[in-house]
Amino acid sequence: MFRFHLEAVDSATGARAGHWETPHGVVETPAFMPVGTRGSVKGLWPEQLRQTGAQKILANTYHLALRPGAEVVRDLGGLHRFMNWDGPILTDSGGFQVFSLSGLRRMDERSVVFKSHIDGSLLELSPESAMKIQEDLGADCIMCLDECPPATAPEEKIQAAVDLTTRWAARCRDAHQRADQALFGIVQGGVLPSQRERSATALLPLDFPGYAIGGLSVGEAPAQMYETVGFTTPFLPQNKPRYLMGVGRPVDLIECVTRGIDLFDCVMPTRNARNATAFTSRGPVKMRNLVHQRDEGPLDPDCSCRTCTQFSRGYIRHLFMVEEMLGPMMLTLHNLTFYQTLMRDLRTAIKSNRLTEFRAERLAALRGEL
Amino acid sequence: MFRFHLEAVDSATGARAGHWETPHGVVETPAFMPVGTRGSVKGLWPEQLRQTGAQKILANTYHLALRPGAEVVRDLGGLHRFMNWDGPILTDSGGFQVFSLSGLRRMDERSVVFKSHIDGSLLELSPESAMKIQEDLGADCIMCLDECPPATAPEEKIQAAVDLTTRWAARCRDAHQRADQALFGIVQGGVLPSQRERSATALLPLDFPGYAIGGLSVGEAPAQMYETVGFTTPFLPQNKPRYLMGVGRPVDLIECVTRGIDLFDCVMPTRNARNATAFTSRGPVKMRNLVHQRDEGPLDPDCSCRTCTQFSRGYIRHLFMVEEMLGPMMLTLHNLTFYQTLMRDLRTAIKSNRLTEFRAERLAALRGEL
Ligand SMILES: [Zn+2]
Ligand SMILES: [Zn+2]
Repeated sequence: MFRFHLEAVDSATGARAGHWETPHGVVETPAFMPVGTRGSVKGLWPEQLRQTGAQKILANTYHLALRPGAEVVRDLGGLHRFMNWDGPILTDSGGFQVFSLSGLRRMDERSVVFKSHIDGSLLELSPESAMKIQEDLGADCIMCLDECPPATAPEEKIQAAVDLTTRWAARCRDAHQRADQALFGIVQGGVLPSQRERSATALLPLDFPGYAIGGLSVGEAPAQMYETVGFTTPFLPQNKPRYLMGVGRPVDLIECVTRGIDLFDCVMPTRNARNATAFTSRGPVKMRNLVHQRDEGPLDPDCSCRTCTQFSRGYIRHLFMVEEMLGPMMLTLHNLTFYQTLMRDLRTAIKSNRLTEFRAERLAALRGEL
Repeated sequence: MFRFHLEAVDSATGARAGHWETPHGVVETPAFMPVGTRGSVKGLWPEQLRQTGAQKILANTYHLALRPGAEVVRDLGGLHRFMNWDGPILTDSGGFQVFSLSGLRRMDERSVVFKSHIDGSLLELSPESAMKIQEDLGADCIMCLDECPPATAPEEKIQAAVDLTTRWAARCRDAHQRADQALFGIVQGGVLPSQRERSATALLPLDFPGYAIGGLSVGEAPAQMYETVGFTTPFLPQNKPRYLMGVGRPVDLIECVTRGIDLFDCVMPTRNARNATAFTSRGPVKMRNLVHQRDEGPLDPDCSCRTCTQFSRGYIRHLFMVEEMLGPMMLTLHNLTFYQTLMRDLRTAIKSNRLTEFRAERLAALRGEL
């Protein structure tokens, strides 16, 4: 049901272009997955999401398990029917939000107990329940429960997290049942080469169909993130997809594709859209700025999305100044189109073996602003 | 540039079906105009608004004059280009909001002075400036400045408002310049037959291309509103469009079409959508209700909009419970489709001379709930 094909590997960098077959269609890689936290990519209809070029999307297990509940999603036909998204979907394990959003109450070998950020109720998440919930949600690609310590934690703490993550990964693999869901292992290890190696080496015998790199983009400097990705990907199998969780800005995507990543997700294009910041080929644009007030020109003349072809900067600025929903809706469509266009251009550059030139051109055009 | 054609008059009631030619296309009447207060019908792209069946929309002069300012809209190409709506547009005069939203400071023969509800600045609106602002905005159909007293005001007050509205209407007509804009007179007079007759009789010699009925739907009982419409429309010319301002619920549209109204506008379908209330062929549905939690069925099985054909009640409820923008977006699309479908059905009923039966069927189906 799942097949990963590498079509090209850039000779200078090792960057990869390929495609991943799933029960809900093919994902061309490298790919960026828009985030639909609560079962909706905020402000877009599924058909508009498709128009941006998105092939695969992400939904968050933690949020959906709290509301409406995984069993409700299951009873409504699973995530694909629930959201009316017939393409591939990935769910995370919920662990990251348990550590970051909720009140963590107890964590031991067996499970984590946490307090819901919605109603304060006490809930438990174990490797087995993370599998059960994700099977109810029904995404094509699901994640092992992992422990994600702060990147700055001392090495003993990082090492303990790596080891617990490995033991939990084995339990996830044993609990996982649905053949139409690909379960990914998650490599932890902070920014330490030896710990990343330990983590990857321990997970490889479990023979997951794909591997994620977790524990990055949690506050470390971009250069340290790139370096960590750079020394981690060589430990991962060449013939399986590699997913860098929660990354990132356009520049991060370019730098991490260059270091061998195939899959990305990040709230930045959608969250920034709601905050009136547009990503463009010439860098970020803040749409509330007075300079746009009487500007009849398009947001990004290089973009073919409906926002850029049908509306002026002056109108978009007005929508944000008066807090009309259409403003966030329009910038979300644009920002995701910008991201998907970047990914398409990266795939083309890799297949034509000119990623190094492409990277230099694009980073120059962004003028270091993003 | 403007031509109004009556195609059919229902023999039993006098209800009319026709079409109105404008510089931006034809409006089939009776018609409902969705409200785009600040230059956007909240939550819809213009192409989606078109898909609901809407032919003509309304924008509010008061709000647009405050932000972004009428001259900014003019510099961005006028309302049609600003919003990317190429169909007919109507703007009100701003007077109603001056009386209802802002802090009214002074009103005399010359003008009204009011305090902006946005920043507290003092502004002035006169018949002449109401024309200038609406010419800058550039709608196809514009409104005279009128005085709209409470429906419950004493008769001396109502009569004074009728007389001032007449004098201001003459000044509006004299100040109005653009031939591609049709200026409507507004009949006032509260719920008093003699005052409605005085108002209409005084305005008819000014020979406006259309007449609005103002000062209703401001708190009076529905039966009183219907009665007032019923005794006012006979004073209006048969060969010109009649616009009932700010009305109303589906039942109000049916009752007032029956009494000879051609044009309507109301925030109810869009505002209720944002509050999770759907209009359906079987009456209103509150989408946050627990009963919808696991409901795989469509919102309204009789509706062909994307909300009803692509998503379950369970999903729509979830969107509202977690406050996703897509919930209001979906119900706005549905509610406006419901309104436009009702107007289409009313036009068909009039043309087939069976409005009385249609009215009885639809009121029974709504079970008096709306
Ligand atoms: Zn764009
Ligand atoms: Zn519908």
